[in-house]
Amino acid sequence: MTDWVENYPGFPDGISGYELIDRMKRQAENFGLEVRNQEVLALELTPKKKKVVTEGGVMEAKALILTTGAAPQRLGIDGEALLTGKGISYCATCDGPFYRDQEVAVIGGGDTAVEEAIFLTRFVSKVYLLHRRDRLRAIKLLQERAMAQEKIQILWNTVATRIVGETEVKGLDLKDVKTGYETHLPVQGVFIFIGYSPNNQLAKDLLELDKWGFVKTNNDMETSISGVFAAGDIRSKSLRQVSTAVGEGAAALVAAQRYIEGLQ
Amino acid sequence: MTDWVENYPGFPDGISGYELIDRMKRQAENFGLEVRNQEVLALELTPKKKKVVTEGGVMEAKALILTTGAAPQRLGIDGEALLTGKGISYCATCDGPFYRDQEVAVIGGGDTAVEEAIFLTRFVSKVYLLHRRDRLRAIKLLQERAMAQEKIQILWNTVATRIVGETEVKGLDLKDVKTGYETHLPVQGVFIFIGYSPNNQLAKDLLELDKWGFVKTNNDMETSISGVFAAGDIRSKSLRQVSTAVGEGAAALVAAQRYIEGLQ
Repeated sequence: MTDWVENYPGFPDGISGYELIDRMKRQAENFGLEVRNQEVLALELTPKKKKVVTEGGVMEAKALILTTGAAPQRLGIDGEALLTGKGISYCATCDGPFYRDQEVAVIGGGDTAVEEAIFLTRFVSKVYLLHRRDRLRAIKLLQERAMAQEKIQILWNTVATRIVGETEVKGLDLKDVKTGYETHLPVQGVFIFIGYSPNNQLAKDLLELDKWGFVKTNNDMETSISGVFAAGDIRSKSLRQVSTAVGEGAAALVAAQRYIEGLQ
Repeated sequence: MTDWVENYPGFPDGISGYELIDRMKRQAENFGLEVRNQEVLALELTPKKKKVVTEGGVMEAKALILTTGAAPQRLGIDGEALLTGKGISYCATCDGPFYRDQEVAVIGGGDTAVEEAIFLTRFVSKVYLLHRRDRLRAIKLLQERAMAQEKIQILWNTVATRIVGETEVKGLDLKDVKTGYETHLPVQGVFIFIGYSPNNQLAKDLLELDKWGFVKTNNDMETSISGVFAAGDIRSKSLRQVSTAVGEGAAALVAAQRYIEGLQ
Protein backbone atom coordinates (compact mmCIF):
# COMPACT_ATOMS: atom_id res chain seq x y z
CA MET A 1 0.00 0.00 0.00
CA THR A 2 2.98 2.29 0.57
CA ASP A 3 3.57 4.35 -2.54
CA TRP A 4 7.17 5.31 -1.83
CA VAL A 5 9.56 3.85 0.74
CA GLU A 6 12.37 6.09 1.98
CA ASN A 7 13.34 4.41 5.23
CA TYR A 8 14.41 0.95 4.10
CA PRO A 9 18.21 0.91 4.19
CA GLY A 10 19.90 0.33 0.82
CA PHE A 11 17.88 2.67 -1.38
CA PRO A 12 19.32 6.17 -0.96
CA ASP A 13 16.76 7.77 -3.26
CA GLY A 14 13.85 5.68 -2.02
CA ILE A 15 11.98 2.98 -3.91
CA SER A 16 8.36 2.39 -4.77
CA GLY A 17 6.55 -0.06 -2.51
CA TYR A 18 5.57 -2.05 -5.56
CA GLU A 19 9.13 -2.35 -6.87
CA LEU A 20 10.55 -3.26 -3.48
CA ILE A 21 8.05 -6.12 -3.14
CA ASP A 22 8.78 -7.29 -6.67
CA ARG A 23 12.53 -7.31 -6.00
CA MET A 24 12.14 -9.24 -2.76
CA LYS A 25 9.85 -11.75 -4.44
CA ARG A 26 12.24 -12.35 -7.36
CA GLN A 27 15.13 -12.72 -4.91
CA ALA A 28 13.31 -15.35 -2.84
CA GLU A 29 12.27 -17.17 -6.02
CA ASN A 30 15.92 -17.20 -7.17
CA PHE A 31 16.58 -19.31 -4.06
CA GLY A 32 13.72 -21.67 -4.86
CA LEU A 33 10.77 -20.18 -2.99
CA GLU A 34 7.44 -21.15 -4.53
CA VAL A 35 4.78 -18.46 -4.23
CA ARG A 36 1.12 -19.42 -4.42
CA ASN A 37 -1.56 -16.76 -4.57
CA GLN A 38 -4.45 -18.36 -2.75
CA GLU A 39 -6.81 -17.17 -0.12
CA VAL A 40 -6.26 -18.99 3.15
CA LEU A 41 -9.60 -19.84 4.73
CA ALA A 42 -8.44 -21.39 7.97
CA LEU A 43 -5.50 -22.89 9.83
CA GLU A 44 -5.46 -26.13 11.80
CA LEU A 45 -2.47 -26.00 14.10
CA THR A 46 -1.18 -28.70 16.38
CA PRO A 47 2.39 -29.14 17.63
CA LYS A 48 2.70 -32.10 15.23
CA LYS A 49 1.04 -30.79 12.09
CA LYS A 50 0.19 -27.44 10.50
CA LYS A 51 -2.68 -27.52 8.03
CA VAL A 52 -3.45 -24.58 5.78
CA VAL A 53 -6.95 -24.69 4.36
CA THR A 54 -7.13 -22.72 1.12
CA GLU A 55 -9.75 -22.24 -1.53
CA GLY A 56 -7.62 -24.58 -3.67
CA GLY A 57 -7.31 -27.39 -1.14
CA VAL A 58 -5.49 -28.26 2.07
CA MET A 59 -1.72 -27.90 2.39
CA GLU A 60 0.23 -29.64 5.12
CA ALA A 61 3.47 -28.30 6.54
CA LYS A 62 5.93 -29.13 9.29
CA ALA A 63 6.31 -25.48 10.25
CA LEU A 64 4.41 -22.31 9.46
CA ILE A 65 5.38 -18.63 9.48
CA LEU A 66 2.46 -16.24 9.80
CA THR A 67 2.98 -12.88 8.07
CA THR A 68 -0.54 -11.57 7.60
CA GLY A 69 0.36 -8.03 8.58
CA ALA A 70 -1.85 -5.31 9.92
CA ALA A 71 -3.91 -2.53 8.45
CA PRO A 72 -4.57 1.03 9.53
CA GLN A 73 -8.20 1.70 10.26
CA ARG A 74 -9.85 3.79 7.58
CA LEU A 75 -12.12 6.77 8.07
CA GLY A 76 -14.42 5.49 5.35
CA ILE A 77 -15.11 8.92 3.85
CA ASP A 78 -15.20 10.15 0.28
CA GLY A 79 -11.80 10.59 -1.34
CA GLU A 80 -9.95 8.35 1.12
CA ALA A 81 -9.57 5.29 -1.12
CA LEU A 82 -8.79 7.42 -4.18
CA LEU A 83 -6.06 9.51 -2.54
CA THR A 84 -4.34 6.94 -0.31
CA GLY A 85 -0.65 7.19 -1.12
CA LYS A 86 -1.33 10.46 -2.96
CA GLY A 87 -1.38 12.77 0.03
CA ILE A 88 -3.12 10.47 2.50
CA SER A 89 -0.78 8.54 4.76
CA TYR A 90 -1.03 6.23 7.73
CA CYS A 91 2.64 6.57 8.74
CA ALA A 92 4.32 9.87 9.68
CA THR A 93 7.81 8.42 10.00
CA CYS A 94 7.44 6.97 6.49
CA ASP A 95 5.92 9.95 4.74
CA GLY A 96 6.57 13.02 6.93
CA PRO A 97 9.67 14.12 5.01
CA PHE A 98 7.62 14.47 1.79
CA TYR A 99 5.68 17.39 3.32
CA ARG A 100 8.54 19.69 4.15
CA ASP A 101 7.27 23.26 4.69
CA GLN A 102 3.74 22.27 3.76
CA GLU A 103 0.52 22.23 5.78
CA VAL A 104 -0.97 18.90 6.83
CA ALA A 105 -3.86 17.55 8.87
CA VAL A 106 -3.60 14.76 11.42
CA ILE A 107 -6.81 12.92 12.26
CA GLY A 108 -7.13 11.21 15.64
CA GLY A 109 -6.80 11.91 19.34
CA GLY A 110 -4.90 8.97 20.84
CA ASP A 111 -1.23 8.56 21.70
CA THR A 112 -0.19 7.70 18.17
CA ALA A 113 -2.03 10.61 16.56
CA VAL A 114 -0.54 13.14 18.97
CA GLU A 115 2.93 11.62 18.86
CA GLU A 116 2.91 11.62 15.07
CA ALA A 117 1.58 15.20 14.97
CA ILE A 118 4.54 16.26 17.11
CA PHE A 119 6.91 14.28 14.91
CA LEU A 120 5.55 15.97 11.78
CA THR A 121 6.46 19.43 13.11
CA ARG A 122 10.06 18.60 12.22
CA PHE A 123 9.17 18.83 8.57
CA VAL A 124 5.94 20.68 7.98
CA SER A 125 5.07 24.32 8.53
CA LYS A 126 1.73 23.60 10.19
CA VAL A 127 -0.18 20.63 11.61
CA TYR A 128 -3.94 20.76 12.10
CA LEU A 129 -4.86 18.08 14.63
CA LEU A 130 -8.49 17.11 14.09
CA HIS A 131 -10.30 15.37 16.91
CA ARG A 132 -13.97 14.50 17.11
CA ARG A 133 -14.17 15.13 20.85
CA ASP A 134 -13.39 18.09 23.09
CA ARG A 135 -10.42 16.42 24.74
CA LEU A 136 -7.59 14.17 23.57
CA ARG A 137 -7.30 10.52 24.61
CA ALA A 138 -3.49 10.71 24.51
CA ILE A 139 -1.44 10.63 27.72
CA LYS A 140 -1.05 13.97 29.49
CA LEU A 141 2.63 14.38 28.65
CA LEU A 142 1.90 14.13 24.93
CA GLN A 143 -1.08 16.47 25.22
CA GLU A 144 1.06 19.09 26.94
CA ARG A 145 3.73 18.82 24.29
CA ALA A 146 1.24 19.11 21.46
CA MET A 147 -0.34 22.17 23.03
CA ALA A 148 3.05 23.79 23.63
CA GLN A 149 4.10 23.24 20.03
CA GLU A 150 3.39 26.38 18.00
CA LYS A 151 3.08 24.54 14.70
CA ILE A 152 0.20 22.40 15.99
CA GLN A 153 -3.33 23.76 15.99
CA ILE A 154 -5.98 21.48 17.49
CA LEU A 155 -9.43 21.58 15.91
CA TRP A 156 -11.81 20.23 18.58
CA ASN A 157 -15.15 18.53 17.94
CA THR A 158 -14.22 18.27 14.30
CA VAL A 159 -14.63 15.45 11.80
CA ALA A 160 -13.52 15.25 8.18
CA THR A 161 -16.42 14.48 5.88
CA ARG A 162 -14.51 14.38 2.58
CA ILE A 163 -10.94 14.43 1.37
CA VAL A 164 -10.75 16.78 -1.59
CA GLY A 165 -8.52 16.30 -4.62
CA GLU A 166 -8.31 14.39 -7.85
CA THR A 167 -4.71 13.26 -8.31
CA GLU A 168 -3.43 14.65 -5.00
CA VAL A 169 -4.84 15.92 -1.74
CA LYS A 170 -5.97 19.56 -1.91
CA GLY A 171 -7.84 19.81 1.36
CA LEU A 172 -10.49 18.51 3.73
CA ASP A 173 -14.18 19.24 4.13
CA LEU A 174 -14.79 19.56 7.86
CA LYS A 175 -17.81 19.53 10.11
CA ASP A 176 -18.14 20.75 13.69
CA VAL A 177 -20.00 17.91 15.43
CA LYS A 178 -21.52 20.26 18.04
CA THR A 179 -22.70 23.12 15.83
CA GLY A 180 -23.02 21.24 12.52
CA TYR A 181 -21.07 24.09 10.94
CA GLU A 182 -19.22 23.02 7.79
CA THR A 183 -15.97 24.44 6.49
CA HIS A 184 -13.03 23.66 4.19
CA LEU A 185 -9.40 23.30 5.24
CA PRO A 186 -6.76 23.47 2.50
CA VAL A 187 -3.90 21.04 3.27
CA GLN A 188 -1.37 19.12 1.16
CA GLY A 189 -1.27 16.04 3.35
CA VAL A 190 -3.63 14.06 5.58
CA PHE A 191 -2.30 11.65 8.21
CA ILE A 192 -4.91 9.29 9.65
CA PHE A 193 -4.23 7.68 13.05
CA ILE A 194 -7.50 6.32 14.31
CA GLY A 195 -6.18 2.85 15.05
CA TYR A 196 -4.20 0.00 13.59
CA SER A 197 -5.66 -3.49 13.37
CA PRO A 198 -3.77 -6.76 13.14
CA ASN A 199 -4.92 -9.03 10.32
CA ASN A 200 -5.42 -11.80 12.87
CA GLN A 201 -8.56 -13.48 11.53
CA LEU A 202 -6.72 -16.77 10.96
CA ALA A 203 -4.80 -16.68 14.24
CA LYS A 204 -7.12 -15.21 16.80
CA ASP A 205 -8.71 -18.42 18.08
CA LEU A 206 -5.48 -20.42 17.89
CA LEU A 207 -2.53 -18.34 19.03
CA GLU A 208 -1.79 -16.23 22.07
CA LEU A 209 -2.34 -12.54 21.29
CA ASP A 210 -1.45 -9.33 23.11
CA LYS A 211 -4.22 -7.03 24.31
CA TRP A 212 -4.35 -5.27 20.93
CA GLY A 213 -4.76 -8.56 19.05
CA PHE A 214 -1.18 -8.91 17.74
CA VAL A 215 0.46 -12.34 17.85
CA LYS A 216 2.87 -12.87 20.73
CA THR A 217 6.22 -14.55 20.01
CA ASN A 218 9.46 -15.23 21.82
CA ASN A 219 12.78 -13.79 20.62
CA ASP A 220 13.03 -16.57 18.02
CA MET A 221 9.64 -15.51 16.57
CA GLU A 222 7.93 -18.66 17.80
CA THR A 223 4.27 -18.26 18.80
CA SER A 224 2.39 -20.08 21.55
CA ILE A 225 2.20 -23.16 19.31
CA SER A 226 5.43 -25.04 18.70
CA GLY A 227 6.52 -24.83 15.04
CA VAL A 228 4.31 -21.82 14.31
CA PHE A 229 6.18 -18.56 13.90
CA ALA A 230 5.13 -14.97 13.21
CA ALA A 231 7.00 -12.09 11.59
CA GLY A 232 6.25 -8.54 10.52
CA ASP A 233 3.33 -6.31 11.40
CA ILE A 234 1.15 -9.14 12.74
CA ARG A 235 3.68 -9.64 15.54
CA SER A 236 3.41 -8.04 18.96
CA LYS A 237 6.27 -5.50 19.00
CA SER A 238 7.05 -1.82 19.24
CA LEU A 239 8.16 -0.76 15.73
CA ARG A 240 6.44 -1.69 12.47
CA GLN A 241 8.68 -0.92 9.49
CA VAL A 242 10.03 -2.81 6.48
CA SER A 243 13.42 -2.85 8.20
CA THR A 244 12.12 -4.64 11.29
CA ALA A 245 9.96 -7.02 9.24
CA VAL A 246 12.84 -8.38 7.13
CA GLY A 247 14.93 -9.23 10.17
CA GLU A 248 12.02 -10.97 11.82
CA GLY A 249 11.36 -12.91 8.62
CA ALA A 250 14.97 -14.10 8.54
CA ALA A 251 14.94 -15.01 12.24
CA ALA A 252 11.62 -16.86 11.87
CA LEU A 253 12.95 -18.79 8.89
CA VAL A 254 16.11 -19.90 10.68
CA ALA A 255 14.08 -20.87 13.74
CA ALA A 256 11.61 -22.80 11.56
CA GLN A 257 14.48 -24.62 9.86
CA ARG A 258 15.95 -25.58 13.25
CA TYR A 259 12.51 -26.69 14.39
CA ILE A 260 12.11 -28.96 11.36
CA GLU A 261 15.60 -30.40 11.78
CA GLY A 262 14.73 -31.16 15.40
CA LEU A 263 11.73 -33.23 14.27
CA GLN A 264 13.90 -35.65 12.32
CA MET B 1 34.25 -7.55 4.97
CA THR B 2 31.58 -9.48 3.05
CA ASP B 3 32.43 -9.44 -0.62
CA TRP B 4 28.96 -10.21 -1.95
CA VAL B 5 25.62 -10.11 -0.12
CA GLU B 6 22.84 -12.34 -1.44
CA ASN B 7 20.54 -12.57 1.57
CA TYR B 8 19.57 -8.94 2.16
CA PRO B 9 16.02 -8.53 0.82
CA GLY B 10 15.66 -6.05 -2.04
CA PHE B 11 18.62 -7.04 -4.20
CA PRO B 12 17.53 -10.03 -6.31
CA ASP B 13 20.93 -10.43 -7.95
CA GLY B 14 22.89 -9.67 -4.79
CA ILE B 15 25.01 -6.62 -4.09
CA SER B 16 28.61 -6.08 -3.06
CA GLY B 17 29.15 -5.45 0.64
CA TYR B 18 30.95 -2.24 -0.23
CA GLU B 19 28.13 -0.90 -2.39
CA LEU B 20 25.45 -1.80 0.14
CA ILE B 21 27.31 0.11 2.86
CA ASP B 22 27.81 3.07 0.54
CA ARG B 23 24.10 3.17 -0.35
CA MET B 24 23.05 2.98 3.30
CA LYS B 25 25.50 5.72 4.22
CA ARG B 26 24.30 8.06 1.45
CA GLN B 27 20.69 7.39 2.42
CA ALA B 28 21.31 8.26 6.07
CA GLU B 29 23.24 11.38 5.03
CA ASN B 30 20.31 12.44 2.84
CA PHE B 31 18.31 12.60 6.07
CA GLY B 32 20.97 14.69 7.79
CA LEU B 33 23.17 12.12 9.51
CA GLU B 34 26.68 13.35 10.11
CA VAL B 35 29.32 10.64 9.88
CA ARG B 36 32.65 11.14 11.61
CA ASN B 37 35.46 8.67 11.07
CA GLN B 38 37.26 8.73 14.38
CA GLU B 39 38.59 6.04 16.61
CA VAL B 40 36.67 5.89 19.86
CA LEU B 41 39.06 5.37 22.74
CA ALA B 42 36.58 5.06 25.61
CA LEU B 43 33.02 5.65 26.73
CA GLU B 44 31.89 7.30 29.94
CA LEU B 45 28.29 6.29 30.49
CA THR B 46 25.94 7.48 33.19
CA PRO B 47 22.14 7.56 33.04
CA LYS B 48 22.40 11.36 32.68
CA LYS B 49 25.25 11.77 30.23
CA LYS B 50 27.02 9.75 27.56
CA LYS B 51 30.57 10.81 26.79
CA VAL B 52 32.45 9.46 23.80
CA VAL B 53 36.19 9.93 24.09
CA THR B 54 37.79 9.99 20.64
CA GLU B 55 41.24 10.72 19.34
CA GLY B 56 39.81 14.07 18.20
CA GLY B 57 38.26 15.09 21.50
CA VAL B 58 35.29 14.29 23.73
CA MET B 59 31.73 14.25 22.36
CA GLU B 60 28.73 14.44 24.64
CA ALA B 61 25.37 12.94 23.78
CA LYS B 62 22.00 12.43 25.39
CA ALA B 63 21.70 8.91 24.03
CA LEU B 64 24.10 6.48 22.43
CA ILE B 65 23.63 3.49 20.12
CA LEU B 66 26.48 1.00 20.17
CA THR B 67 27.03 -0.83 16.86
CA THR B 68 30.59 -2.05 17.10
CA GLY B 69 29.78 -5.43 15.62
CA ALA B 70 31.64 -8.68 16.00
CA ALA B 71 34.41 -10.45 14.17
CA PRO B 72 35.05 -14.07 13.34
CA GLN B 73 38.20 -15.42 14.89
CA ARG B 74 40.97 -15.87 12.37
CA LEU B 75 43.25 -18.86 12.01
CA GLY B 76 46.22 -16.59 11.54
CA ILE B 77 47.83 -18.71 8.82
CA ASP B 78 49.42 -17.79 5.49
CA GLY B 79 46.94 -16.92 2.75
CA GLU B 80 44.06 -16.18 5.11
CA ALA B 81 44.17 -12.38 4.92
CA LEU B 82 44.85 -12.42 1.17
CA LEU B 83 41.99 -14.74 0.23
CA THR B 84 39.26 -13.63 2.64
CA GLY B 85 36.20 -12.99 0.49
CA LYS B 86 37.94 -14.80 -2.37
CA GLY B 87 37.14 -18.33 -1.35
CA ILE B 88 37.52 -17.96 2.42
CA SER B 89 34.29 -17.32 4.24
CA TYR B 90 33.12 -17.03 7.83
CA CYS B 91 29.39 -17.45 7.00
CA ALA B 92 27.91 -20.53 5.30
CA THR B 93 24.40 -19.10 4.98
CA CYS B 94 25.89 -16.04 3.26
CA ASP B 95 28.31 -17.76 0.94
CA GLY B 96 27.26 -21.41 0.68
CA PRO B 97 25.27 -20.95 -2.55
CA PHE B 98 28.42 -19.74 -4.36
CA TYR B 99 29.98 -23.20 -4.04
CA ARG B 100 27.32 -25.26 -5.76
CA ASP B 101 28.73 -28.65 -6.79
CA GLN B 102 32.21 -27.71 -5.62
CA GLU B 103 34.39 -29.12 -2.84
CA VAL B 104 34.96 -27.09 0.31
CA ALA B 105 36.68 -27.39 3.67
CA VAL B 106 35.14 -26.42 6.99
CA ILE B 107 37.55 -25.69 9.83
CA GLY B 108 36.37 -26.11 13.43
CA GLY B 109 34.75 -28.67 15.69
CA GLY B 110 32.09 -26.82 17.68
CA ASP B 111 28.34 -26.55 17.15
CA THR B 112 28.62 -23.80 14.56
CA ALA B 113 31.27 -25.56 12.50
CA VAL B 114 29.30 -28.82 12.38
CA GLU B 115 25.96 -27.10 11.78
CA GLU B 116 27.43 -25.07 8.94
CA ALA B 117 29.11 -28.14 7.45
CA ILE B 118 25.72 -29.86 7.36
CA PHE B 119 24.12 -26.75 5.87
CA LEU B 120 26.76 -26.61 3.12
CA THR B 121 25.84 -30.12 1.93
CA ARG B 122 22.76 -28.54 0.33
CA PHE B 123 24.98 -26.86 -2.20
CA VAL B 124 28.39 -28.44 -2.41
CA SER B 125 29.44 -31.88 -3.64
CA LYS B 126 31.81 -32.53 -0.73
CA VAL B 127 32.66 -31.04 2.67
CA TYR B 128 35.95 -31.84 4.40
CA LEU B 129 35.51 -31.06 8.09
CA LEU B 130 38.93 -30.36 9.59
CA HIS B 131 39.31 -30.63 13.33
CA ARG B 132 42.51 -30.40 15.34
CA ARG B 133 41.36 -32.98 17.90
CA ASP B 134 40.17 -36.58 17.69
CA ARG B 135 36.60 -35.77 18.71
CA LEU B 136 34.19 -32.94 17.96
CA ARG B 137 33.07 -30.42 20.59
CA ALA B 138 29.62 -30.11 18.96
CA ILE B 139 26.54 -31.57 20.63
CA LYS B 140 25.91 -35.26 20.02
CA LEU B 141 22.90 -34.75 17.76
CA LEU B 142 24.96 -32.60 15.38
CA GLN B 143 27.86 -35.04 15.48
CA GLU B 144 25.56 -37.90 14.54
CA ARG B 145 24.07 -35.95 11.69
CA ALA B 146 27.46 -34.95 10.36
CA MET B 147 28.70 -38.53 10.48
CA ALA B 148 25.56 -39.82 8.76
CA GLN B 149 25.89 -37.31 5.96
CA GLU B 150 27.69 -38.89 3.00
CA LYS B 151 28.98 -35.60 1.64
CA ILE B 152 30.87 -34.85 4.87
CA GLN B 153 34.30 -36.36 5.48
CA ILE B 154 35.88 -35.58 8.84
CA LEU B 155 39.66 -35.17 8.92
CA TRP B 156 40.68 -35.74 12.54
CA ASN B 157 43.79 -34.35 14.24
CA THR B 158 44.25 -32.07 11.29
CA VAL B 159 45.20 -28.41 11.07
CA ALA B 160 45.54 -26.16 8.05
CA THR B 161 48.98 -24.59 7.83
CA ARG B 162 48.45 -22.50 4.68
CA ILE B 163 45.63 -21.50 2.38
CA VAL B 164 46.85 -21.82 -1.17
CA GLY B 165 45.86 -19.55 -4.04
CA GLU B 166 46.66 -16.18 -5.53
CA THR B 167 43.38 -14.60 -6.63
CA GLU B 168 41.15 -17.41 -5.37
CA VAL B 169 41.37 -20.38 -3.08
CA LYS B 170 42.92 -23.45 -4.72
CA GLY B 171 43.44 -25.64 -1.70
CA LEU B 172 44.85 -26.13 1.79
CA ASP B 173 48.15 -27.36 3.11
CA LEU B 174 47.37 -29.71 5.98
CA LYS B 175 49.28 -31.23 8.83
CA ASP B 176 48.40 -34.20 10.99
CA VAL B 177 49.12 -33.00 14.53
CA LYS B 178 49.81 -36.54 15.79
CA THR B 179 52.07 -37.85 13.04
CA GLY B 180 53.39 -34.55 11.69
CA TYR B 181 52.54 -35.84 8.22
CA GLU B 182 51.90 -33.03 5.72
CA THR B 183 49.57 -33.13 2.74
CA HIS B 184 47.65 -30.93 0.33
CA LEU B 185 43.85 -30.80 -0.06
CA PRO B 186 42.49 -29.17 -3.22
CA VAL B 187 39.25 -27.26 -2.41
CA GLN B 188 37.50 -24.25 -3.92
CA GLY B 189 36.19 -22.85 -0.64
CA VAL B 190 37.27 -22.68 2.99
CA PHE B 191 34.78 -21.95 5.76
CA ILE B 192 36.32 -21.04 9.10
CA PHE B 193 34.24 -21.46 12.27
CA ILE B 194 36.62 -21.37 15.19
CA GLY B 195 34.70 -18.73 17.11
CA TYR B 196 33.07 -15.35 16.81
CA SER B 197 34.08 -12.49 19.06
CA PRO B 198 32.04 -9.41 19.94
CA ASN B 199 33.89 -6.14 19.45
CA ASN B 200 33.10 -5.25 23.04
CA GLN B 201 36.28 -3.50 24.12
CA LEU B 202 34.42 -0.22 24.75
CA ALA B 203 31.45 -1.84 26.46
CA LYS B 204 32.80 -4.71 28.48
CA ASP B 205 33.42 -2.89 31.76
CA LEU B 206 30.29 -0.74 31.51
CA LEU B 207 27.37 -2.76 30.14
CA GLU B 208 25.81 -6.08 31.03
CA LEU B 209 27.03 -8.81 28.67
CA ASP B 210 25.90 -12.36 28.00
CA LYS B 211 28.26 -15.24 28.69
CA TRP B 212 29.84 -14.93 25.26
CA GLY B 213 30.53 -11.21 25.73
CA PHE B 214 27.70 -9.81 23.59
CA VAL B 215 25.75 -6.81 24.92
CA LYS B 216 22.40 -7.63 26.49
CA THR B 217 19.39 -5.47 25.58
CA ASN B 218 15.66 -5.50 26.12
CA ASN B 219 13.21 -5.69 23.18
CA ASP B 220 13.65 -1.94 22.61
CA MET B 221 17.41 -2.44 22.22
CA GLU B 222 18.18 -0.66 25.48
CA THR B 223 21.23 -1.93 27.39
CA SER B 224 21.71 -2.11 31.15
CA ILE B 225 22.37 1.66 31.18
CA SER B 226 19.41 3.90 30.50
CA GLY B 227 19.80 5.81 27.23
CA VAL B 228 22.44 3.45 25.89
CA PHE B 229 21.25 1.15 23.12
CA ALA B 230 22.88 -1.59 21.07
CA ALA B 231 22.09 -2.92 17.60
CA GLY B 232 23.59 -5.40 15.17
CA ASP B 233 26.21 -8.07 15.72
CA ILE B 234 27.39 -6.68 19.07
CA ARG B 235 23.95 -7.46 20.53
CA SER B 236 23.11 -10.68 22.35
CA LYS B 237 20.74 -12.46 19.93
CA SER B 238 20.36 -15.59 17.86
CA LEU B 239 20.78 -14.48 14.22
CA ARG B 240 23.47 -12.14 12.90
CA GLN B 241 22.59 -10.93 9.40
CA VAL B 242 22.27 -7.58 7.62
CA SER B 243 18.50 -8.08 7.68
CA THR B 244 18.34 -8.39 11.46
CA ALA B 245 20.82 -5.56 12.00
CA VAL B 246 18.83 -2.96 10.05
CA GLY B 247 15.65 -3.64 12.03
CA GLU B 248 17.51 -3.40 15.30
CA GLY B 249 19.09 -0.14 14.16
CA ALA B 250 15.66 1.31 13.40
CA ALA B 251 14.21 0.07 16.69
CA ALA B 252 17.19 1.44 18.64
CA LEU B 253 16.85 4.81 16.93
CA VAL B 254 13.16 5.13 17.70
CA ALA B 255 13.79 4.06 21.30
CA ALA B 256 16.64 6.58 21.61
CA GLN B 257 14.42 9.32 20.22
CA ARG B 258 11.69 8.48 22.76
CA TYR B 259 14.31 8.40 25.51
CA ILE B 260 15.57 11.87 24.59
CA GLU B 261 12.04 13.26 24.38
CA GLY B 262 11.37 11.82 27.85
CA LEU B 263 14.32 13.82 29.22
CA GLN B 264 12.78 17.15 28.24
